[in-house]
Amino acid sequence: MGKKKTTFNISKIDNFSEWYSEILNKAEITDLRYGVKGFVVIRPWGARIIDKMYRIYESALRATGHDPAVFPAVIPEGNFKRESSHVEGFAPDVFWLESVKGDDKLALRPTSETAFYDMYNIWIRSYRDLPMKIYQRANVFRNETKATRPLIRSREFHWIEAHDAFATKKDAEEQVQDDIRMTEEVMHKIFGVPFLPMKRPQWDKFPGAEYTVGADSIMPDGKIIQQPSTHLISQSFVKAFDVKFVDEKEKEKTPWLTCYGPCMSRILASILSVHGDDNGLILPYTISPIQVIVVPFSPRDDSGEPNGKGVGDAVDKIRADLMAEYIDVKVDDSDKRPGEKFFFWEMKGVPFRIEIGEKELESGEVIVFIRDTKEKISVSIKDLPETIKNLGAEYDERLIARADEFFGDKVVDCKDKDTIKKALDSGKIARFSFCSAEKEGAECAEYVEKELSARVMGTRADLNEKASGKCPICGKKASVVVYAGKSY
Amino acid sequence: MGKKKTTFNISKIDNFSEWYSEILNKAEITDLRYGVKGFVVIRPWGARIIDKMYRIYESALRATGHDPAVFPAVIPEGNFKRESSHVEGFAPDVFWLESVKGDDKLALRPTSETAFYDMYNIWIRSYRDLPMKIYQRANVFRNETKATRPLIRSREFHWIEAHDAFATKKDAEEQVQDDIRMTEEVMHKIFGVPFLPMKRPQWDKFPGAEYTVGADSIMPDGKIIQQPSTHLISQSFVKAFDVKFVDEKEKEKTPWLTCYGPCMSRILASILSVHGDDNGLILPYTISPIQVIVVPFSPRDDSGEPNGKGVGDAVDKIRADLMAEYIDVKVDDSDKRPGEKFFFWEMKGVPFRIEIGEKELESGEVIVFIRDTKEKISVSIKDLPETIKNLGAEYDERLIARADEFFGDKVVDCKDKDTIKKALDSGKIARFSFCSAEKEGAECAEYVEKELSARVMGTRADLNEKASGKCPICGKKASVVVYAGKSY
Repeated sequence: MGKKKTTFNISKIDNFSEWYSEILNKAEITDLRYGVKGFVVIRPWGARIIDKMYRIYESALRATGHDPAVFPAVIPEGNFKRESSHVEGFAPDVFWLESVKGDDKLALRPTSETAFYDMYNIWIRSYRDLPMKIYQRANVFRNETKATRPLIRSREFHWIEAHDAFATKKDAEEQVQDDIRMTEEVMHKIFGVPFLPMKRPQWDKFPGAEYTVGADSIMPDGKIIQQPSTHLISQSFVKAFDVKFVDEKEKEKTPWLTCYGPCMSRILASILSVHGDDNGLILPYTISPIQVIVVPFSPRDDSGEPNGKGVGDAVDKIRADLMAEYIDVKVDDSDKRPGEKFFFWEMKGVPFRIEIGEKELESGEVIVFIRDTKEKISVSIKDLPETIKNLGAEYDERLIARADEFFGDKVVDCKDKDTIKKALDSGKIARFSFCSAEKEGAECAEYVEKELSARVMGTRADLNEKASGKCPICGKKASVVVYAGKSY
Repeated sequence: MGKKKTTFNISKIDNFSEWYSEILNKAEITDLRYGVKGFVVIRPWGARIIDKMYRIYESALRATGHDPAVFPAVIPEGNFKRESSHVEGFAPDVFWLESVKGDDKLALRPTSETAFYDMYNIWIRSYRDLPMKIYQRANVFRNETKATRPLIRSREFHWIEAHDAFATKKDAEEQVQDDIRMTEEVMHKIFGVPFLPMKRPQWDKFPGAEYTVGADSIMPDGKIIQQPSTHLISQSFVKAFDVKFVDEKEKEKTPWLTCYGPCMSRILASILSVHGDDNGLILPYTISPIQVIVVPFSPRDDSGEPNGKGVGDAVDKIRADLMAEYIDVKVDDSDKRPGEKFFFWEMKGVPFRIEIGEKELESGEVIVFIRDTKEKISVSIKDLPETIKNLGAEYDERLIARADEFFGDKVVDCKDKDTIKKALDSGKIARFSFCSAEKEGAECAEYVEKELSARVMGTRADLNEKASGKCPICGKKASVVVYAGKSY
């Protein structure tokens, strides 16, 4: 920690783990003192960011033809267990409710395929009902056996799950591509979190899926973190729930289903980690709960109102003008010293700070401090709303460019075990030709996991990369190019 | 049911119970076929209304100094049981999780006082931390023993709970009044649901409260339904969680807490019931998912596009112009017959329908159908956005006035058991002088419940009504004026 209580000064790159824990606490994002392992309280600063994230993500889903719904948080055991690979995959992590007279045994949803499909069995009758694209904003529960980590791996988390049904496999596969595009448009281009879209190897797909595409992002310590994944649901899953429709020719068919699960709490972990610096958070302008903090320098009169020469009035007008342009602005007129206020809002990640005192009032120009570059610029009071909007757009572009730059040199081409190990140990992602992403490759993946403490992430879902030579693990002919990284 | 599949024709007043079940189903608000008693699926039409309701309610809370947070859905048994009257009141209805190694026994929250206060114990240190006003949007769970009824009494419901802390009792009591005012401003003046603010008798307060004020609304069958209630939390509850602060003079004090719980799913039940008519839903303009449905009368060409003389282009322009003014508009260009479309959107409660064909295009004027009055008016195409906005404001005013009119004659002054019984049996609320709203009155209230199948709702929280004469039940001197009604 820094010299003063109010400053934050931890090297994000050298000491990411400490940085992450400390900033969640100091910036009042989460509180870990709730007393149940893996259940955290999300405090107002975190909740307000997540609220903005939800609005953006839900708008994007609505704009692509999705409707919201609200499903029960409990799933009857009979439905939950209807598809064997799904139950095998999730059963160990399920919280069950104590049995209640008259009820089936109830699971607290770890994910809601088995809730949605039970209704899709009723709702989908004809080709006219397709595509059916429904999402919900929900809390889901997993009794994690691995170590939990706030926002990254919790036993309750907050996500959106979209469950879509299509008449043809082609339509469903296009939806998988649309989902990847949405991750790109929202998570990367708005929230500034770059990722690699990876088609998971067969041994690592969603339980009940034909295949899974995950968006892998990278943390400052080089570890990969899985962000939204999309699944093409297997036909055996669809058949287990007896979802059918009648096509144009009155023929009974099985629809193709996909699901997409952007997790707000987990994406927030990436946002905070990717953009922050040694002095605390740097929040994207678009999702910062407060976009502009105004710090007036006016002494107060006895009644506590800012006094003299109209600083108070000017501040009121600035606030009103910014609000009129839908800019989230707050005036910090607490009795803390200006320096304390500066550090506090800097640490919280607020993009812009306006400093205004009598001198500024006279000149008609205020100082605007810019959080990421730490520049101070002079802006005429009457131009503030327009200037802040322009600066805000530039701000987010700069954050994205910086994140891309960090991300850009993370992938290293490797040819043998040694170079793979070297890449992984230096916090990079290793790319190499590999025997197979089908079941035959599982043994080599296990070697990578045990001997190199890394995960074979899969093959690129957006590129067709050609393998060459032999698998560096087993020596058999390589058939795919895979990526591997250390993960949480 | 009516003559055709697409029409809806049930008398809301004569047959409210059937009307309610049928409209939830036909308008696709909820689906009861999920297979677990008391857990319903809220379908897109319902979810989109609830989403708008949440936004309005959350804005109102933010505007009055509340911040959002996200608390875990589970509460450790130790915390849950810390205050005896609270645990007595809620324990019978709690869903418990099957025990997990390493965890305390966990309750699925029936309400979150015991989650919030556990953190308030940590967060509140000094008078500078007060007032603390935090809310969450959450699902809560109660294992209802009474019969469940969709949206009205479910085992999982969707609400907002605000938990506020103040330095003095006076501040807390002002918050109780502010909460009643918010119910008035949002539920009555925006959603159009009138209510009576009732201070509950001592035997009917929230378990752990010093007192409770409930907002009682009335359904079309004359039954009362409790809407948002506010509680002044008892000091024993606050002390059980050891919530303390140090005042300006460094003296340790106990803060005063309030909580407020507007339930979106339950308020939706009132909105649908209060405004609907025999042909289906009538949704307030402000919260209707679709505010304007456009039905074009143009035949299509072979490619499925509206053909000829520019009806398609005109419709596109109307849609764009309305959207530009933030009006939620949809064009129904499905291949259903116009009559079917009319009935469908009428039953769904969409406020305005625009009909446009070649004739309208030539004249430059379209027909606007108004759902509640069933009027058809002619509006020039270029004035549509402005006209719809004005009509929308008038529409909601009309809905509120109509609801107030229905509500206005519901309270009947009574003097003895006979007149009380007569009032209750004719779907009215009985107002009468009563022995006591303190514990001594519980026995007479029990008589009302058993013999008259009605509930003593309490005394007016907004008025000071003077009792006169004797209690019609026990004959003792009356001390308060109470209201009683049949309830769900």
